[in-house]
Amino acid sequence: MSSSQSLRALSIDNINPHVKAAKYAVRGELAVKSEEYRAKLAKGEGKDLPFDTVIAANIGNPQQLDQKPITFFRQVASLLENPLLLAHEDVLTSSLGYKPDVLERARWLLKEVKSVGAYSQSQGVPGIRESVAKFIERRDGYPATSKDIYLSNGASSGVNTLLHVICATPETGIMVPIPQYPLYTATLSVLNARCVPYYLDEGTGWGTDLKAITDSYEKAISEGTDVKAIAIINPGNPTGASLPAEDIKAVLKFAAEKKLVVLADEVYQTNVFVGKFISFKKALRDLQAESPGEFDNLELASLHSVSKGMVGECGHRGGYFELCGFDPEVAAEIYKFISIQLCPPVLGQCFVELMVHPPVEGEPSYELYQSEYDGIFKGLEKRANALYDAFKQMEGVECQTPAGSMYLFPTITLPPKAIEQAKKEGRQPDEFYCFRMLDATGICVVAGSGFGQKEGTLHFRTTFLAPGTEWTGRIVKFHQEFMEEFK
Amino acid sequence: MSSSQSLRALSIDNINPHVKAAKYAVRGELAVKSEEYRAKLAKGEGKDLPFDTVIAANIGNPQQLDQKPITFFRQVASLLENPLLLAHEDVLTSSLGYKPDVLERARWLLKEVKSVGAYSQSQGVPGIRESVAKFIERRDGYPATSKDIYLSNGASSGVNTLLHVICATPETGIMVPIPQYPLYTATLSVLNARCVPYYLDEGTGWGTDLKAITDSYEKAISEGTDVKAIAIINPGNPTGASLPAEDIKAVLKFAAEKKLVVLADEVYQTNVFVGKFISFKKALRDLQAESPGEFDNLELASLHSVSKGMVGECGHRGGYFELCGFDPEVAAEIYKFISIQLCPPVLGQCFVELMVHPPVEGEPSYELYQSEYDGIFKGLEKRANALYDAFKQMEGVECQTPAGSMYLFPTITLPPKAIEQAKKEGRQPDEFYCFRMLDATGICVVAGSGFGQKEGTLHFRTTFLAPGTEWTGRIVKFHQEFMEEFK
Repeated sequence: MSSSQSLRALSIDNINPHVKAAKYAVRGELAVKSEEYRAKLAKGEGKDLPFDTVIAANIGNPQQLDQKPITFFRQVASLLENPLLLAHEDVLTSSLGYKPDVLERARWLLKEVKSVGAYSQSQGVPGIRESVAKFIERRDGYPATSKDIYLSNGASSGVNTLLHVICATPETGIMVPIPQYPLYTATLSVLNARCVPYYLDEGTGWGTDLKAITDSYEKAISEGTDVKAIAIINPGNPTGASLPAEDIKAVLKFAAEKKLVVLADEVYQTNVFVGKFISFKKALRDLQAESPGEFDNLELASLHSVSKGMVGECGHRGGYFELCGFDPEVAAEIYKFISIQLCPPVLGQCFVELMVHPPVEGEPSYELYQSEYDGIFKGLEKRANALYDAFKQMEGVECQTPAGSMYLFPTITLPPKAIEQAKKEGRQPDEFYCFRMLDATGICVVAGSGFGQKEGTLHFRTTFLAPGTEWTGRIVKFHQEFMEEFK
Repeated sequence: MSSSQSLRALSIDNINPHVKAAKYAVRGELAVKSEEYRAKLAKGEGKDLPFDTVIAANIGNPQQLDQKPITFFRQVASLLENPLLLAHEDVLTSSLGYKPDVLERARWLLKEVKSVGAYSQSQGVPGIRESVAKFIERRDGYPATSKDIYLSNGASSGVNTLLHVICATPETGIMVPIPQYPLYTATLSVLNARCVPYYLDEGTGWGTDLKAITDSYEKAISEGTDVKAIAIINPGNPTGASLPAEDIKAVLKFAAEKKLVVLADEVYQTNVFVGKFISFKKALRDLQAESPGEFDNLELASLHSVSKGMVGECGHRGGYFELCGFDPEVAAEIYKFISIQLCPPVLGQCFVELMVHPPVEGEPSYELYQSEYDGIFKGLEKRANALYDAFKQMEGVECQTPAGSMYLFPTITLPPKAIEQAKKEGRQPDEFYCFRMLDATGICVVAGSGFGQKEGTLHFRTTFLAPGTEWTGRIVKFHQEFMEEFK
C-alpha cells in the first residue's frame, strides 16, 4: 500500500470486496484499449497503426455500427420531446413526411405520460404496461396483465432488481449458464451470493443439457448452497443458440420440481434465424394446460428490452420484466426496491411501447416500418452467415451455425507456443489472442474466458453488427498470420 | 405463513432481508393511495370524494405539475431523436421557430454521441463530460477535468454507486443528516451498512451543527462502527435549507480530520432564494488554497441532476457526479461497477449537456431561454412564500423561511387526542395527519417520520410545485377542521 493511499479514507484494500470481486469483460481492458485506438485515430495520430478504423465487435450496440433507427419510432420520439410541434400538423405531414399515425401515437403517449420530463410511476406508465400485456397476449396466445409488468432501465436493471430480491444470504445460489452474459456473475459477486454454473452443450449448438443442470444442482446442494433460481438466456448470449420447446419445458419442469424461480432473459427474442422463438411464458402456460395444478406455483420472470432485435435502441435504456406466479408480498418488495431509484427513463418506456405496438398493416407508417425492419433482419442474417463462412476457412476455428441473437462464439484451438506466450504475458490464452487481434486489426472482440467456458476450451465472442465484409477479411488475415507466428 | 407461500421458492420470509428492511416513504403507502384516488377521478368515479383533483406534493416532479419544459432543450432533443429533420433546415427555422443555435447544438451533440440510440462509454459521452467540467470551472473558479466526471442515471444512481463502493462490511457507517431524503437510509439498508444519523438544527433553519456531527461520530465509533463517509444535502431535502460557506468548510475540516469521504448532494444548487449557492468543491479548493497541503487527501464526490432546478427533466434520468481526491484504483472500481449496467440513458446525458451549457447572451435562443428560466424561478419563489404564509396562519404549525430546494418542512404540534387516535390506527402521528389530509383534500404530502426527525417532534414535507394557490387554501381548511376534531 502506498503512503498516499493510507492518507485517504478509501483504498483498493478497504472498499467493498464484493464490488472488487466482480468481473465484467464486455467493457474491460480490451474495450478500454480499443477506445484508446479510436481516440488516437480520431485525432489523426494513428499513422503508425496497421488499421484505419476500430470495429467494436465486443458489444451489441447496433446504432454505433451504422444500424439506422426505425423511422416511425424516432418520429414519434421527436414529437414526445417537443410536443409544440403537434400544433404544426400541416408542416409535419406535408413538409416533413410525418404520417397521421405518427401524430396520433405521439398524442396518445403524451396523454399517458403527461410529459417525458416527468417521473412516472416506479413500475412504469400504466398505459404502456397495458400495451406490453397486449403484446404478450398476441405473442403467446395466453392472457397477460399490466399489473405483472415492470418497466425497467434496459433489461440489465431488471436482472439487478430480481437478483437483489432473491439473494438473501451468502449461501443463496443462482444457476447460471456457462458461457453466459457476465451481468449475471458480476451482479452475484456484488451481492455476495453464489453462482451455480451449468454448462451448455456445445455439441448440440449450445443447448441446455438437463443432466448438466441436474448434476450442477446436486453438487451445489451437497455444498450447502441454497439454490433459489435458474437463469436462462434464450436466444443465447454469447452463444447465439435458440432453444426448442422441449428444452424450455424440461427446464421449467426441473425448476418446478426443485422449487426454483425461473429467470428467462429473452432480449434477443426477435433475433432468430433458425426455427421460431418460444417464450418461457408460453411454454409454462402450455405445461399448465397439459397438467392442471402441477405448475401453478412456479415463479417465472421474463425479461425483454428495446436494446436488441431490430429496434437496437440501447442508448434509450428501455426494458421490462413480467412476473408470473410470484407471491404478492414479494412483488410488493420488488416494487419498493425499484421505487428507491424512482422510475426508468420515461422516453425509454415510450420506446418499449413503440416496440411492442408497431404500425400494423393498413396503417400509414406500416410499409416503411416493415421494410426497415425486414432490411435490418436480413442484413444481420447475411452478415452472420458471411462471418460464419469466414470462420469455416480458419485453421483451428469451429463455429455453430448462426441461429439467433447478435453473436457468434467460435471455439479456437491455439498452438502450444501461443499458449506459452500468453502465460508469459500473464493472460488467458484466448484473451492473449483477442489482444493480438485488436492490435493487428482494430477489431475488438471479447475472450471466451469473459463469459466462462469448459476447462481447456478457448473461444471468443463477436457481434455480427458491423457493416460490410471487409472487416471479416481482416480477421481471416490476422488469424493466418497468428497461426504462422506460433506454429 | 400461508400454505400457498410455502409452495413457492420465494416468500416474504425468505427474500433478501436487507431489501425488506429498506423504507422509502416518498413513494410509499400514502403515494399509492393518492394514485388510487387519481385513477378513480380519471374514470369519473370520484363523485363521493370531497375533492376533484389530486395534488402530488409528495415528490419533486415539476413537469407532472404543469411546469413547462425549457423550449431550447426540447427543440434540441427533438432533433437528436429524429436527425433526419436536420435536412429540412428551412422548414425548421422558417415554419417551426427553431433558431440556428438549436440546430448547431443538435449537430454537435450528434457528432459526440453518434446516435442517442447507441450505448455510450459507461462513464458518459466524453464531449458531454468536457462540457460538465467547463461548467464546474465557471461556477467555482477552479479547474475541473472530464476524467473525474461520471454521468449517471439521475443523481440517485450516483448515490447508489458511491455507497456500493464505500460500504465494505456490516460495520461500515455513513453519516446521514436527519431529516434526510430517504434514498440514503434505504440504500444503506439494502447494503446492510450502518446509518450514522446526525441531526440538523431546526433552530438555525436546519443548518449543520458541528457539535451534533461530532457527538454522533464519537457515539458511532464507540459502538464499533467504521465511519467512512458523511453525506450532506445542500440545499436541503426535505428541509429547504441553504448552507453558508462557514458551515460547509466546518464539515470539510471535520471530514479531513476524521478521514471521511464527503458526499455532497447538490441537486438543488439552482433552487436558492436566500443567499448564494456555494459548492463543496469550491469550498474545498478555497480551503486548499488557504492551507496548502492540509486538505490534499480529502475525498469529495459531488452530485448534480437534470431533475430539479429550472430544468425539471426528472423523467429523462440525467445526472453526474464529480470525484475529487479519490485514489485512481478506487475510481477504476467505480468505473467497473457502473459498466455492469452499461451506460446512463444517452438522451439524459444530452440533457445534462444542455443544462450545463445553456444559450448565453448574444445567442439566438438566449432571450427565450432566460425568460423561461426566470419565470420558473420566480414562480417557485412566489409559491414557496404563499405556502409559507399559509403555514403561518395555521395553529400549531411552524415553518422556516423558504431558502432553497423545492420543499417546506413545517413542524406540527398535534393535540393529544389526535396522537391517541393515530396510535389506535397503528400509525405515526404525522403519518396519521397526512393520511387525513389526503382523504380530505386530495393533497399528498410525506410525513416527517419518512425522513427522520428528533424524538417527540412531528413534521411533514410538501413541495411548492403545484400551480395556483387554491390548494394551499385546502390545506388551511383541512388543518382547521382537524384541530377542531381532536381538540
